[in-house]
Amino acid sequence: MLCHAVLMGSKQCHAMPRQAVPCHARQCRAMHGGTVPCQALLYLSTSLAGGKRDTDLILPINSSLSVTLHQDQLRTTTTAAACRDFTEDRLWLNGEEVDAGQPRLQACLREVRRLARKRRGDDAAAPLSLSYKVHVASENNFPTAAGLASSAAGYACLVSALARLYGVEGELSEVARRGSGSACRSMLGGFVQWHRGERPDGKDSVAQQLAPETHWPELSVLVLVVSGEKKAVGSTAGMQTSVDTSPLLKYRAEMVVPERMTRMARCIQDRDFEAFGQLTMQDSNQFHATCLDTFPPIFYLNDISQRIIALAHRFNAHHGRTKVAYTFDAGPNAVIFMLEDTVDEFVEVVRRSFPPNSNGDQFLRGRPVGTAVLPEELVSAVVVDPVPGAIRYILHTKPGPGPQLLDDPSQHLLGPDGLPCRSA
Amino acid sequence: MLCHAVLMGSKQCHAMPRQAVPCHARQCRAMHGGTVPCQALLYLSTSLAGGKRDTDLILPINSSLSVTLHQDQLRTTTTAAACRDFTEDRLWLNGEEVDAGQPRLQACLREVRRLARKRRGDDAAAPLSLSYKVHVASENNFPTAAGLASSAAGYACLVSALARLYGVEGELSEVARRGSGSACRSMLGGFVQWHRGERPDGKDSVAQQLAPETHWPELSVLVLVVSGEKKAVGSTAGMQTSVDTSPLLKYRAEMVVPERMTRMARCIQDRDFEAFGQLTMQDSNQFHATCLDTFPPIFYLNDISQRIIALAHRFNAHHGRTKVAYTFDAGPNAVIFMLEDTVDEFVEVVRRSFPPNSNGDQFLRGRPVGTAVLPEELVSAVVVDPVPGAIRYILHTKPGPGPQLLDDPSQHLLGPDGLPCRSA
Repeated sequence: MLCHAVLMGSKQCHAMPRQAVPCHARQCRAMHGGTVPCQALLYLSTSLAGGKRDTDLILPINSSLSVTLHQDQLRTTTTAAACRDFTEDRLWLNGEEVDAGQPRLQACLREVRRLARKRRGDDAAAPLSLSYKVHVASENNFPTAAGLASSAAGYACLVSALARLYGVEGELSEVARRGSGSACRSMLGGFVQWHRGERPDGKDSVAQQLAPETHWPELSVLVLVVSGEKKAVGSTAGMQTSVDTSPLLKYRAEMVVPERMTRMARCIQDRDFEAFGQLTMQDSNQFHATCLDTFPPIFYLNDISQRIIALAHRFNAHHGRTKVAYTFDAGPNAVIFMLEDTVDEFVEVVRRSFPPNSNGDQFLRGRPVGTAVLPEELVSAVVVDPVPGAIRYILHTKPGPGPQLLDDPSQHLLGPDGLPCRSA
Repeated sequence: MLCHAVLMGSKQCHAMPRQAVPCHARQCRAMHGGTVPCQALLYLSTSLAGGKRDTDLILPINSSLSVTLHQDQLRTTTTAAACRDFTEDRLWLNGEEVDAGQPRLQACLREVRRLARKRRGDDAAAPLSLSYKVHVASENNFPTAAGLASSAAGYACLVSALARLYGVEGELSEVARRGSGSACRSMLGGFVQWHRGERPDGKDSVAQQLAPETHWPELSVLVLVVSGEKKAVGSTAGMQTSVDTSPLLKYRAEMVVPERMTRMARCIQDRDFEAFGQLTMQDSNQFHATCLDTFPPIFYLNDISQRIIALAHRFNAHHGRTKVAYTFDAGPNAVIFMLEDTVDEFVEVVRRSFPPNSNGDQFLRGRPVGTAVLPEELVSAVVVDPVPGAIRYILHTKPGPGPQLLDDPSQHLLGPDGLPCRSA
């Protein structure tokens, strides 16, 4: 099947592919081109972490806060297409076809179509029939299911692409939430809060930007990827068990998180790294504590995660203040915040503590890092008992914007036939 | 210096050494022989775990419960001596001399002497001057500082030995508590509760036996020793930080533990293994959760501990009920409860999951274990991804009695000169 590519309306989309290809008469009334890179996300105060009070609507038991990372380094790319000729919804993740009938995907599709219907009213001239089946292809440029918020980025990107496809605009975090709770935060850039909300229908459980990514330009991020293995327990399954079995989670959600959310928002507003860092670490630890209080318990941190935590505390202790702050989501990989002037030194400390196994060419990725000469007393106080090969690579990034349309047509993941491009 | 050995009064002490050796005139008015093996202890509901509300008196923030393990397998042996010729207090632990001036040792010594003074009244004929310096030697037959309650057993044994030395009887758990909080529980056999108490002076913070070791004869215990390394954070230092920094610990102590204590006492009374096992695992996990909520966080469980936990849950899931229940104290080694009829099978499951590196001669220690042939479906469901050499050895034991006097004089740790026997 070959289709005629049609551009869906967006002013940003000035470089969309306009490939004229043969089309089977009128079978194919519209095919979309919408490609959206998206961001990975990390938790300061946790949300999935908080578990859900409603698993169908995906309503969390507490509010949460995240920093959207820059898609120059961590991104999901998604292409969505709809066509009269498609006989079924189909989904490809990282090149592998997976079940497109999964309830969360279908919930997002249903919600976007509902918004489109509402918007169009009786406009019969709308180019794309809402009854067409869709094809979606999505790729991450970072490890999936390793606690780097791949499903959050994935669903945010999916909803952005579908919204473009159907010409829907406006508040979409509520729709993204139906795919994966934390995806609602990925619909915005910078520092983002997900309000728990009070309504049973979830209409007030939406994301809000506290500050754009430009608010704190010195804030830098290192992702320490310790393992690409899939985690043993998916975060969705894990979190529901937590809500049911952990007495500490309930207490945390009700009594600890609300006060911390207020405090964290103030730290960000004031760009107070000391307070921001302390609270980030404490809240990451408390999230993992509630995982352990779950029955059966859930472990996302492994021995290497523990070593990274100990290293960060030794580094801060040596400097007499909070210079680096770790946070771990549902996996062993560390996300470490620091101000720009600390990056070079801390990267060298990590390299000494976890010497790369190979020649080290691919050890440092993302934004450039300068060289640092470590003072001897720093090395002896902080670099204890190195573990070669324990960290696969370090990714240097920073806070970034929300979903973006891709300018480059060569990055589209579906070809004119609606099937994945071989060389995507 | 050679001393005249004098037997301190105890009817149980019918086989004490009565070595007549030359003595320097009257310089040496009394030398003790008191040797007490003691037990290792483990937590069901935690106590040290609970942190302390008073670090000097060692008063816990919550009550706790433990099972005293049998000293045929896990024990501390201690000899205490006092002599006019001793010029200073001296202490040997596992053959190494350590500082005897440490406040906790001195607190125990002071308390025992105070009780001795009270008991003697004006009895000037008391054979042993309370002003003499003491020599103490103590040995564990299990790894020290690896989360197997070595300091609890050690201080309980010290206080028992000193009490014999000075002829003090009666309630001594309050004194043992001054050495190491959990030591108070080691002063009794079987199932022991440490009451938190309400008084600021700690007089009501004492241990009480809930049931003797004979109450539940089918209850068996496996200790899985995964590492002899000392833990990174001593439990005393760790726990004080927890009290100061963990909001979850405070909630646990006030709201969760009291209800669980009542429930646990009932499980033991009813010999209800299903309920006992579930609660044991949940409370172990919650203790470690509060360690993680401490800032900086404390990790006692390592990757191997996590694998043991997962193994236990798979084993129970396969059987459709709680057949084994793990508990971890302040270290990576697992203590696993089960009924007698499960021991052979579970030992084989552990052996398959963590195949011994050497020929396996020393892999299984303690009480005898029969052979078991595992059904194929058990192996495929439970033995996942074996890790050779991860467990050093399995110790098979059971609940046991409190402190005992040693009958065998050859096991005394101090010679007639008051110095450690070379071949103790």
